[in-house]
Amino acid sequence: MPSTLDVEAKYDLITRRLQEVLGGDSIKAILAEGRPPKAYWGTAPTGRPHIGYFVALTKIADFLRAGVEVKILLADVHAFLDNLKAPLELVAHRTKYYKFLLRTVFTSLGIPTSKLIFVQGSDYQLTREYNLDNYRLCATVTEHDAKKAGAEVVKQVESPLISGLLYPGLQALDEQYLGVDFQFGGVDQRKIFTFAELYLPRLGYAKRAHLMNPMVPGLMGGKMSSSDPDSKIDFLDAPEAVKRKIKKAFCEEGNITENGLLAFIKTVLIPISQLRIERRKGETGVDSEEGQGAIGDQNPFVDDDAPEGTVFTIRREGKFGGPPSHYKDYQELEEDFSAKKVHPSDLKTAVNKAIDSLLAPIRKAFAESPEWQEVEKLAYPDPNAKTEPKKKKEKVYHPPPPGKGKNAQVTKASAESSEPPLPISENTQPGAAGEL
Amino acid sequence: MPSTLDVEAKYDLITRRLQEVLGGDSIKAILAEGRPPKAYWGTAPTGRPHIGYFVALTKIADFLRAGVEVKILLADVHAFLDNLKAPLELVAHRTKYYKFLLRTVFTSLGIPTSKLIFVQGSDYQLTREYNLDNYRLCATVTEHDAKKAGAEVVKQVESPLISGLLYPGLQALDEQYLGVDFQFGGVDQRKIFTFAELYLPRLGYAKRAHLMNPMVPGLMGGKMSSSDPDSKIDFLDAPEAVKRKIKKAFCEEGNITENGLLAFIKTVLIPISQLRIERRKGETGVDSEEGQGAIGDQNPFVDDDAPEGTVFTIRREGKFGGPPSHYKDYQELEEDFSAKKVHPSDLKTAVNKAIDSLLAPIRKAFAESPEWQEVEKLAYPDPNAKTEPKKKKEKVYHPPPPGKGKNAQVTKASAESSEPPLPISENTQPGAAGEL
Repeated sequence: MPSTLDVEAKYDLITRRLQEVLGGDSIKAILAEGRPPKAYWGTAPTGRPHIGYFVALTKIADFLRAGVEVKILLADVHAFLDNLKAPLELVAHRTKYYKFLLRTVFTSLGIPTSKLIFVQGSDYQLTREYNLDNYRLCATVTEHDAKKAGAEVVKQVESPLISGLLYPGLQALDEQYLGVDFQFGGVDQRKIFTFAELYLPRLGYAKRAHLMNPMVPGLMGGKMSSSDPDSKIDFLDAPEAVKRKIKKAFCEEGNITENGLLAFIKTVLIPISQLRIERRKGETGVDSEEGQGAIGDQNPFVDDDAPEGTVFTIRREGKFGGPPSHYKDYQELEEDFSAKKVHPSDLKTAVNKAIDSLLAPIRKAFAESPEWQEVEKLAYPDPNAKTEPKKKKEKVYHPPPPGKGKNAQVTKASAESSEPPLPISENTQPGAAGEL
Repeated sequence: MPSTLDVEAKYDLITRRLQEVLGGDSIKAILAEGRPPKAYWGTAPTGRPHIGYFVALTKIADFLRAGVEVKILLADVHAFLDNLKAPLELVAHRTKYYKFLLRTVFTSLGIPTSKLIFVQGSDYQLTREYNLDNYRLCATVTEHDAKKAGAEVVKQVESPLISGLLYPGLQALDEQYLGVDFQFGGVDQRKIFTFAELYLPRLGYAKRAHLMNPMVPGLMGGKMSSSDPDSKIDFLDAPEAVKRKIKKAFCEEGNITENGLLAFIKTVLIPISQLRIERRKGETGVDSEEGQGAIGDQNPFVDDDAPEGTVFTIRREGKFGGPPSHYKDYQELEEDFSAKKVHPSDLKTAVNKAIDSLLAPIRKAFAESPEWQEVEKLAYPDPNAKTEPKKKKEKVYHPPPPGKGKNAQVTKASAESSEPPLPISENTQPGAAGEL
C-alpha cells in the first residue's frame, strides 16, 4: 500500500469489511475530485464504553488512513434524554471521558488523528435553525415512516415514547448539520439510513452515502445479565479482570455461530494485526506519519517465527498442547475451530493476550493523565462512595412515577455501540446483541 | 360594576359565559393576593381571520377589563409548519396583519390594551432552552398520551404526521415560557389542557388553570364549501359583501340548534351590547379609561326607545312587519325564535346591522393606515395579480409528492379560531364547525 493511495485504493480501504454500502459512487466521485470525503459516526456518551467499541473504531481507523475527515458525534443531548435523571453536568463529564478514551484508542493504534474531529450534539442540535428543520421534518414525516425507520434500533415497547419517533429525523439532520458526505454505522441502522436518504432531499438537502458494518455478537456471548459487572470488558480493566471475564465468556467447542471471541478476532484483532504488518512493511495510509506516535507495542498478533502472510497465531498449551496454528485469514481459523482443531481454552488465551496488548497502552495513558483520571471520577462516580449528593438549587426534574419507568426506550445495543441519536441505555438489555 | 372591582367581581368577569374552568381556585388566590393574573390565548397567523374571531376576542375583552395581563401568541412557527410551502417571509407579513387587526378590534370595542401583549412563537420556540424542554417532554410522553390529547383538535388522518404528536407538548411548554397563570381556548382544547396539567409538573413546572369557551357553530351554518369565498365574513368586508353573505347564511324558521346567527348573537353581539350599556352607566372594568379611545359608534344593539334592561332588539320589517321585540337576555330571544315569533329575515337584518356597526370602525382604521394596507398586500397577495413570483436564491423546500399532500394535518377549525400550536389550515375543511 503506497503512502499516496490512488482513488481505487482509498475506496477499497474505506469500504473493506463492510456489510453494505449505499451511495458508494458518490464517495468515488469525491475521491476522484481529489478532495477528502467527510464522514460521521455517533455515539451517546452514557455508560462506560466497553471494548466492543473497537469494532467501530477499527473501521474508523480505515477511514482515517484513507484520508477521510471523520467527525465523531458525541450525542450528549441524546444521552441526557436517554436518562433524564442524569443531570446535564454529568453528561458533560461523560462526554469528556469519551473524548479522552476514543482519542487514546486511535493513538494507541498509531492512527494519525489530525483529521479526527469531535463534535458534541449540543453544539448544534439546540440551535434555532436545526430545530426549525426538525419541526419541518416532523410536519413531513408520517408516524408510520418514523416508526418503521426506528424498528431495528429503538426498543419496541408497549407504550412507546414520542422521542422514539424523533430519533430517525434528528439523525438525518445530523448529516446535514455536520456537513458530511457519508454516515457510518452498524447494519442495524439500515432503516434509519434509508429514511435519511428519502427525507433529507425533501427538505432540500443532499442525500448522503451510508456505510454499514456487519452486526457483531458480543464478546462474552450467551445471555449475560447487565447487572453482572463481568458482562463487559472495560477499556481500563486490569489484566486480571480481563482474564477473569474472558474465562467466563461463552465459547463452545466447534460452535462458530454463537462465538463472540471468534467475532472479535474477525472484526478487531485480525484487522489490527494486518494494520501492524502493513505498517512494518512501510505501507501506511495517506499520512506517512502513521504509526510514529503509536503508544505501546505494535506487534501483530502473530508469533515471531510464523510463516509470511500469517495474520493470527493460536498457541496450544496445557493438556491440549501442540504446535501453534498460524492463520492467513479469518476463514482458516473459523474452519479449524468448526472442525474442533482449535480448543476454546487456546482461543481464549490468544484473545486474552491480544486484548492485553491493546489495553496496556490505554491503561498507561490513563495512569499518566491526572486530567483524565479526574474526569473519570466525575463521569462515573463510585456508587459505593459515601459522599452526600450535592443539593441542587435549580429546578429539579421530577421523573415520572416508577410505573412508567419501563417505557424507557433503549436501543438494541450492538458491538458497533450503535448510533448516537438513539438513546443507548447505560444498562443495556440482558442478552442484547453486541454486549461484550 | 365599580371601576375598582373586588376579587369576586373580577373572578366573575374572568369566568362568565365560559363552559368550563379548571383550576379556578388558583386564579382566585392570585386575585386575592392583589396581583393581576396572566393569561394566554394563541392563534396561528395563517389565512385571513374571519369575524368568528369575535367570539374569542369578546371573552378576552372580559379578561382585559378584569385587569388580566393577556398575551396573544401569534404562533408563526406553527403557521409555517402548517403549510410548508408558505415561506417564513409570508408568515411574517401575516403575523403583522394579525397584530394590526386584533389590536384594532379591541380598540374599536373601547377595551384598553395596555395589558395586551403580542408574542410571536418564534420569539422563544426556537431557543435552546425551549427545545431541550421539548426533547425532555418527548422522552417522557408516550405516543398514546400525545395522540389522545390531540384527538379533538388534530385532524385524524390515515397517515398522521409526527407533528401531530408534538403539538400538545409544545402548547404545554408555551404556558411555562409565556409565564402565564392560565390558558384560554375553546372547549375543544380540553384534552390538550388536561395534558398540560399532567405533564408540566413532570418537568418541574407549575400546573396552570384552563378556561374554556363553549364551541360555537359557524355564523354561516350548513355545509359551506371552503372554496366558496362567501363562506366567511372578513373583518374588512364591505357592507354589500356582508349583506350578501348573511343573506346566504343557513337560518331555518324555528330551528335554534343549527343556527349560526343565534350563536353569534349569544356569544358576541349580546356581550358587546351589554358592555356598551354598562359603560354608558359608567360601569367600566379596572381601567377607568375604558371606552375613551373607542372608535366608531358605541351604541348597544338596542333601539333607543327600548325598555330599560334590553340587550338586543329585533325589528320587524316588510311583510312580517310589526312592533320590534326587545330582549333582556339571549334566552328570551331563543324562545321567541323557537316559537317562530321571530322570522329569519328579521334576525338576519338585526345581525347584519350589528355586524356593520362592529366592522365600520375596523374598515375605517384600515383605510386610514397605509402601513396596514401595505402589510395586507404582502400577507394576502391577490392570487389573480399577474406579477411573476420572485425567484428565490436560497435553498428551496421541495414539498413531498402530491400523493402525500392529503396527509396535511388540519385542525378542526372552531369559531374560537382554536389554538396556536395546532396547525390551522388556510382552507379549513368543508363544513367544519366554526366556519363563518
